[in-house]
Amino acid sequence: MTEIMDTRQFFLNRSTRRSYTRRDIPDPVLNDLLLQASHAPTTGNMQLYSVIVTRDPDLKRQLSPAHFNQPSVTAAPVVLTFCADFNRFVKWCRQRGADPGYDNFQSFMTAVLDTAILAQQFCTVAEMAGLGCCYLGTTTYNAPQIARLLDLPPMVVPVTTLTVGYPDGDGVEVGRLPLDGWVHSEKYVDYTPAAIDSIYAAKESRPDSRRFVAENGKDSLAQVFTDVRYTREANELFSAIFRDFIARSGFPFPD
Amino acid sequence: MTEIMDTRQFFLNRSTRRSYTRRDIPDPVLNDLLLQASHAPTTGNMQLYSVIVTRDPDLKRQLSPAHFNQPSVTAAPVVLTFCADFNRFVKWCRQRGADPGYDNFQSFMTAVLDTAILAQQFCTVAEMAGLGCCYLGTTTYNAPQIARLLDLPPMVVPVTTLTVGYPDGDGVEVGRLPLDGWVHSEKYVDYTPAAIDSIYAAKESRPDSRRFVAENGKDSLAQVFTDVRYTREANELFSAIFRDFIARSGFPFPD
Repeated sequence: MTEIMDTRQFFLNRSTRRSYTRRDIPDPVLNDLLLQASHAPTTGNMQLYSVIVTRDPDLKRQLSPAHFNQPSVTAAPVVLTFCADFNRFVKWCRQRGADPGYDNFQSFMTAVLDTAILAQQFCTVAEMAGLGCCYLGTTTYNAPQIARLLDLPPMVVPVTTLTVGYPDGDGVEVGRLPLDGWVHSEKYVDYTPAAIDSIYAAKESRPDSRRFVAENGKDSLAQVFTDVRYTREANELFSAIFRDFIARSGFPFPD
Repeated sequence: MTEIMDTRQFFLNRSTRRSYTRRDIPDPVLNDLLLQASHAPTTGNMQLYSVIVTRDPDLKRQLSPAHFNQPSVTAAPVVLTFCADFNRFVKWCRQRGADPGYDNFQSFMTAVLDTAILAQQFCTVAEMAGLGCCYLGTTTYNAPQIARLLDLPPMVVPVTTLTVGYPDGDGVEVGRLPLDGWVHSEKYVDYTPAAIDSIYAAKESRPDSRRFVAENGKDSLAQVFTDVRYTREANELFSAIFRDFIARSGFPFPD
């Protein structure tokens, strides 16, 4: 019973950790966490992923610009690049007289889901072992650069990255939307203006949100997202780059 | 220490559960699991997802064909459809004088990752509470049908589904590839024919694998995947349907 309560509190209180001590993660520890994570669900037990472990400081420095120099890349003892991987599976098929039909968007999406599920399971088991993790969403922005640095062959696409280390300092509680803001019973109930106001009220009134708005000279928190953090210009640029990379990697999109 | 060991064994021994007892999952229990899951990482704390809870037996029967009548859909007390959702965020932006630029592929991928991470965190907390889950990969195949049944508006795309219930019977151990089959140190080392043989040897020699091959009249396990389970014909058909659905949903792909 105590154990169940502890687990619940663990999940409610977890948070992203971007700062790490200098303590290393020994290979046996990392490999055991990867082993635990590999028992996460995977489509048809195909395990359509690969993980690249970066420990070499020089390689971390080279990866850093692909992640817009977020400091956790060089600060973490371990950087894990999670890749959607049909290369291995397709090679196995060809070697066994089977004709693989995985050079398409649906297969790409299947591998992306397998990869994200693995990454999150790794994040959970690592955090339970006292480590801290930070996802790098920049992975899909600069996939071509990352693929070049890590020697990724065709049909291997970097999907997300985790920096991992023993956390330094305390985690920051960032809050979440209320449950009824994103859970729908039986059918999706679209949001009225009043519902939007109510769902985002707590988020908007947080001191850190108010500070973001002030620091960026904006009128609203939403404008910090649209004008500063995730702009149309960047999204459109990186959409074109990523789509082109995926197609060149061997997953041509249907026209 | 005991607790840490238990957690490790829990992750190593978990498995997909497709059969459930008739025991219901009370709303407070389900909501608490969703709350725990919502503390999973999410890009920029945007929570780009919605979850549709299906309990109504009639709606489950209607959803069933979209999942190729996999029996867990009607057998489970709860079916959760996890959707990539930019609708709520965009409505919030517009209501706050912000100009959202999220009608693109990169934004779609960001929401997909948020959604998959949430689904996996839900799976973990549910399994830790004694529930069993089964992912339905059919969600991306028949997204248009699912969207119609669940009243999904534009910019909301079903990404994956979990059937959830108290498990009936024992879990089945399915095995995983050896760690060095999918973990790469510093750089991706492409697979030689000998490596492929070695990585897939244990999987191919399992009694259940041999049975699949025999039952389907094939020469190799790989052929069961390419010719029966995940065929080129189906992948290409559902690629076109899904891509068209995503574009119509408000995420046009760059040309």
